[in-house]
Amino acid sequence: MRKPEELFAEFVYDSEKAPQNIDKAVTDVVELLKLKCYTIATAESCTGGLLSALITSVPGASQVFELGLCTYSNRCKQALLQVPAETLAVYGAVSREVADAMVSGLHRQSGADLCISVTGLAGPGGGTTDQPVGTVYAGFMFGSMKFTSRLHLWELEQLDREHIRQYTALCVFGIAAQLLSEDENQ
Amino acid sequence: MRKPEELFAEFVYDSEKAPQNIDKAVTDVVELLKLKCYTIATAESCTGGLLSALITSVPGASQVFELGLCTYSNRCKQALLQVPAETLAVYGAVSREVADAMVSGLHRQSGADLCISVTGLAGPGGGTTDQPVGTVYAGFMFGSMKFTSRLHLWELEQLDREHIRQYTALCVFGIAAQLLSEDENQ
Repeated sequence: MRKPEELFAEFVYDSEKAPQNIDKAVTDVVELLKLKCYTIATAESCTGGLLSALITSVPGASQVFELGLCTYSNRCKQALLQVPAETLAVYGAVSREVADAMVSGLHRQSGADLCISVTGLAGPGGGTTDQPVGTVYAGFMFGSMKFTSRLHLWELEQLDREHIRQYTALCVFGIAAQLLSEDENQ
Repeated sequence: MRKPEELFAEFVYDSEKAPQNIDKAVTDVVELLKLKCYTIATAESCTGGLLSALITSVPGASQVFELGLCTYSNRCKQALLQVPAETLAVYGAVSREVADAMVSGLHRQSGADLCISVTGLAGPGGGTTDQPVGTVYAGFMFGSMKFTSRLHLWELEQLDREHIRQYTALCVFGIAAQLLSEDENQ
């Protein structure tokens, strides 16, 4: 069986396999967390609080939701998540390295069982040839696992800001549900 | 002219005066912030990231959005916003005193020009006779002003979790727009 870091290294949104309904996706994650008595925390850049807003839209989310940080500015990424200034300078805020540093900082700050970070380009501005609008990196820490995924959202038909944020949430909750489902602790 | 702390001490949602469209309400706030080169930060409990998700849904929000903290647990309210344990124990998490302590902590943490905190009961559980579901307190710091508002949302016709969160956002952005509009700095 492949490890999550291999499985999810490049995550292509598949509309046939992915949950069609974002409410269902997030409810599944919250129910799995409740079942296993796990907590969750989020550190968001481009989604700006959408992940935490969706998690806390589920009644009873207070049992599982520990902390949400929306660190939009580089200053806050450094101050609250201890993302090194050098990492931001060398790789840029939208990078695998920053998603990784964000999720590590979030884990230190929250101690949650499942930590998720997101950094990406939701547009409309800021895209380049190497990093088109729709480039999103997500970091995950769960037990002894830690990995980052590059979400392939620039192939979507609707590439506006709101769709990129919504699809990011769908991908992230899809990965989270899979991690929780395959977890052997009861 | 009455001061904001008097004007907004008890804020009754008025569907005739309030903006009908939440996207318009938040876009107005972001445009006013841009115009005045001000920054905004949020500390949310019951809205759980909805305020920051709405602010960052507006293109170019990165110019004005400094930080969003979703401090759902009491532990995080203490750790990240320095809300005193005693204040939480004496007044409870849903109180004017905690909204006030949250907005002060947010201002220290973010340094943003406009700081907003929210704590309330979105339900479905947790309501009492004194504090029915729909009781929400919001704290504001803007320049030398600091005040808290008790939002009267329990008189709404639709008193489910999602409506309470949405109406909270409408009230908060309504108050924010009024503060920014009446600000004399250009």
